Amino acid sequence: MFYVQIFYFLLVKSLLVHSESFTSITHLTYLFNTEVELAKQLESYLHEEYERLDRVEKFLNIIKDEIRQAQGKEENYFGNPINAYLFTKHLTVDWYGIEEIASRAISKDMGDNWIFPSFEDYTGSAIALMRLQDTYKLNTSELASGEISENFKSRKLTAVECYDLGRIAYTNKDFYHTLMWMQEALDQLEKDENKTSVNKVDILDHLAYATSQQGNLEHALAVTEEILNIVPDHVRAMNNKEYYEDLIRNQTSGS
Amino acid sequence: MFYVQIFYFLLVKSLLVHSESFTSITHLTYLFNTEVELAKQLESYLHEEYERLDRVEKFLNIIKDEIRQAQGKEENYFGNPINAYLFTKHLTVDWYGIEEIASRAISKDMGDNWIFPSFEDYTGSAIALMRLQDTYKLNTSELASGEISENFKSRKLTAVECYDLGRIAYTNKDFYHTLMWMQEALDQLEKDENKTSVNKVDILDHLAYATSQQGNLEHALAVTEEILNIVPDHVRAMNNKEYYEDLIRNQTSGS
Repeated sequence: MFYVQIFYFLLVKSLLVHSESFTSITHLTYLFNTEVELAKQLESYLHEEYERLDRVEKFLNIIKDEIRQAQGKEENYFGNPINAYLFTKHLTVDWYGIEEIASRAISKDMGDNWIFPSFEDYTGSAIALMRLQDTYKLNTSELASGEISENFKSRKLTAVECYDLGRIAYTNKDFYHTLMWMQEALDQLEKDENKTSVNKVDILDHLAYATSQQGNLEHALAVTEEILNIVPDHVRAMNNKEYYEDLIRNQTSGS
Repeated sequence: MFYVQIFYFLLVKSLLVHSESFTSITHLTYLFNTEVELAKQLESYLHEEYERLDRVEKFLNIIKDEIRQAQGKEENYFGNPINAYLFTKHLTVDWYGIEEIASRAISKDMGDNWIFPSFEDYTGSAIALMRLQDTYKLNTSELASGEISENFKSRKLTAVECYDLGRIAYTNKDFYHTLMWMQEALDQLEKDENKTSVNKVDILDHLAYATSQQGNLEHALAVTEEILNIVPDHVRAMNNKEYYEDLIRNQTSGS
């Protein structure tokens, strides 16, 4: 108790004096708020940083997995157009996303010293895949599930990957393949555990447009009504619904 | 086997052609080296990043622990000069170290909006501690082990923290307290599990000089010889050994 009382007396009386600085308990208690705020800021900083690294790590695991499967048997691996497509996607669109959140140092060094596929390689590999699909009448579901061949295996495509393929066809005004891959995206979406990766309405939106472009107005209308079931105030879908109904009415009256 | 052969034929012949881009197996296999290198670079990037965040997290845990102990009972907590010293150290020297490896955004925001103790507050709190130590004849070991009082507890100081206190005394030409705290650093070093945090030779080096300044040449010589036992080619220690031996010889012959 002797020390306790002395400390208390000494410190409350601001006796921790040295030259111009002083560190009274009042002063320290005031500075203590800085520490409380610092802890908060560091906590949320760490949380964000760990999330960022988690994304980088997930990407790393995907490409490490790809390397394990392809290394030493590149011809077999890339012989499957799904693998060729996914590989090209990883080093183009996916890497652009990672590059932004990882170190600039890596990105600069990699960009200077290593050849990456171009964005045209990426769309090219998707279009080549669809061409093979036509030539050999490959079933989209089988292709998406990696089941086209014993020797040239690929993994299963996710809903978002099917959607990406559909998007490339769509951008290329290839509505025939847009239909196939958007339908496949829809089917995969039902099975996917992670349903947030692609929005069902986005798939249906592309599906409706591609269907109408392929001349099937009744189906385009049905898909549009499905969009409105999910999002009743979807403006484009409301307009399209009227538009398709008009077209169908005119077709019927014209025939 | 049908598809297999077709794919092989198609792809080896570079048939994955679209406009100007082409993605033959040869081309993909070439680009595959980029992926292998990318995986390596990302792996070491992640490793470094996790290490960096680990340091930030360790600091965060130290200050969170401090907050838990001090909050709501600030007067008791800061009533112990060891706590006042450690707290000030966390928000000055330790934070400067973390600031460099954490986000500039936090550091800027904190610096603009919150008051941190100054470096003088830091050395001031160490010197105040030593002054209290003299006034109330507090035993250094008891102080370092947090055992001076029931009501104003502090945690145990590590070897490096005792060394830091000794360094402040040393820089202040206060060799009396340098001796006390360097000796305490040495004792703690024997007990510390993490012996890499401070170098024994650095402690001995300060101890020898402070001892000689306090006039105990025989002990300064003994400590210097202990340095040479650890690092036989320690240049300053070799010179000091001769110097102390000369001084002792002259003292003896002069007396």
